Amino acid sequence: MAVYTHLGAEDFAGLVAEYDVGDLVSAKGIAEGVSNSNWLIETTRGRYILTMYERRIDTAQLPFFLGLLDHLARSGCAVPATIHDRHGASHRQLEGKAVALIEFLPGVSPTRPTPSQAEAVGSALARVHLAGQSFGERRINDLAPKNTAAILRSCDPAKLADIDERLSGVAERADRLVARWPKSLPCSIIHSDLFPDNVLMLDGTVSGMIDFYFAAFDMMAYDLAVTHAAWCFDSDGRTFDQAVGKALIQGYKAIRPLTLEEREALPLLAQGACLRFVASRAEDWLDTPTDAQVRRKDPVDFLRRWDFYAGKGAAAFA
Amino acid sequence: MAVYTHLGAEDFAGLVAEYDVGDLVSAKGIAEGVSNSNWLIETTRGRYILTMYERRIDTAQLPFFLGLLDHLARSGCAVPATIHDRHGASHRQLEGKAVALIEFLPGVSPTRPTPSQAEAVGSALARVHLAGQSFGERRINDLAPKNTAAILRSCDPAKLADIDERLSGVAERADRLVARWPKSLPCSIIHSDLFPDNVLMLDGTVSGMIDFYFAAFDMMAYDLAVTHAAWCFDSDGRTFDQAVGKALIQGYKAIRPLTLEEREALPLLAQGACLRFVASRAEDWLDTPTDAQVRRKDPVDFLRRWDFYAGKGAAAFA
Repeated sequence: MAVYTHLGAEDFAGLVAEYDVGDLVSAKGIAEGVSNSNWLIETTRGRYILTMYERRIDTAQLPFFLGLLDHLARSGCAVPATIHDRHGASHRQLEGKAVALIEFLPGVSPTRPTPSQAEAVGSALARVHLAGQSFGERRINDLAPKNTAAILRSCDPAKLADIDERLSGVAERADRLVARWPKSLPCSIIHSDLFPDNVLMLDGTVSGMIDFYFAAFDMMAYDLAVTHAAWCFDSDGRTFDQAVGKALIQGYKAIRPLTLEEREALPLLAQGACLRFVASRAEDWLDTPTDAQVRRKDPVDFLRRWDFYAGKGAAAFA
Repeated sequence: MAVYTHLGAEDFAGLVAEYDVGDLVSAKGIAEGVSNSNWLIETTRGRYILTMYERRIDTAQLPFFLGLLDHLARSGCAVPATIHDRHGASHRQLEGKAVALIEFLPGVSPTRPTPSQAEAVGSALARVHLAGQSFGERRINDLAPKNTAAILRSCDPAKLADIDERLSGVAERADRLVARWPKSLPCSIIHSDLFPDNVLMLDGTVSGMIDFYFAAFDMMAYDLAVTHAAWCFDSDGRTFDQAVGKALIQGYKAIRPLTLEEREALPLLAQGACLRFVASRAEDWLDTPTDAQVRRKDPVDFLRRWDFYAGKGAAAFA
């Protein structure tokens, strides 16, 4: 949550002049994004988000991410379109880093999702999956279970147990999950990270889905399971909200019916979703100095969800 | 530059409902302010800045600061007005902290001020001084030279010299300045901190002056000297821009002519302005752990300005 690079008035005005978007009126750094810096830019013609890619993202993949936004926006999904510069480019260089200008969408992220909000999100996700099928580009999901299991295997087991003793043996558990992972469910472009933070809502409808920087070509039902794990629990994963879960699936199925194989796989797919966040949080935890002024996210929050899906997953998705 | 408190959709919607400003459309945390959290709030009726007072500010003084914004805005100054709630209150409590909703103003802060920008700022500052004379409230300037000299005296001389050996003897130098400080120049409400960061400009005019949380009743020419020290040098204080300095004074005088006593006092007042920033930066430097992820501002940047004004101040203000 920060702006990592200082840009001045001349930088903003110079950049805006490269696009056919009118003249600069205002520019405010916004406290969103972990790996990127973001500014809310107002011009005489409209409002935009300027994103500067600071870390993690391989800029060679930007044409995929930015092209995807364009494709989904053109297909009627609630996704911000990429603004192209006067030469047609989807991103430019500024201060030695890649930047992109994207459409600003109204709305506020839900914090305690209601069933009707979850239903709307389920439908919006299904629309992304349907529209994604006609997107010509592909990207491998580098956070698929076999990759995240490998992350856990690379962590020192003693250090994992130091975080929380319930993380003992989690790498072996991950390997068993990978061995059972389904291989032939229907695929499309998936968002992979559709937490409430990445959804904007206005008057009960989804006005925007943002942060597609984990998007990849993978199983659609896995994306639904990620969204289920992200939306249907309190933040530490202790309490499951059955009504929110049912509404999410209902909203999804209303737009894209699930196959029998997908329905049966959901409890396992949801465990894979939890594996991913356990692994990435454990890795971040071990990489973050204890005296850093960054709040580390507890991997156990998703271990609890994993346990829930392993025990009661069939009932939750019934 | 951060948002210190997490507010959710319900918090924003609930707060906005307490004001006659339409319905919530968007809320983004913005990376501005050091002691406060700020959000850019959009409603169906307009845009606003929501400020949460986190630290440093004594909330008993909020009626002064917020009432001042109202007074200056009503007087035609380029200052955001305070939005009052449905009960007429200028600030409310949220999550145990004081919050205020203020008008959003367009514009972008200059980074390398030009003479014409400085001239516009000089005129805008003079208008604040003239309008401030009819503001009924008073606040003592707790960062006047005698107070900031006391800050330097309270610092361990050895630690000051550790920051930079040029800070040796700075407390004694501050005391000598305080002994010569003028006592009877014309007073009004002064901004006291009008750095380029606190000025929004649009099409060459000042569209907004913000962050009045150091405002107090004190000598107007001192405020002009603070602004001179803040606008007319490169950031480390090595290079003075004569054209910017001349334009700033010219813009000020065009709206409010300076008395002979004020003109003669400017070199000394500018040294007092530098004293203030040397003292506050030295104190922050010594209070900030060396391993904190905060960039400490070098007090020497303003010691260089102080030396400049002590040696060439008369010429700079001629």
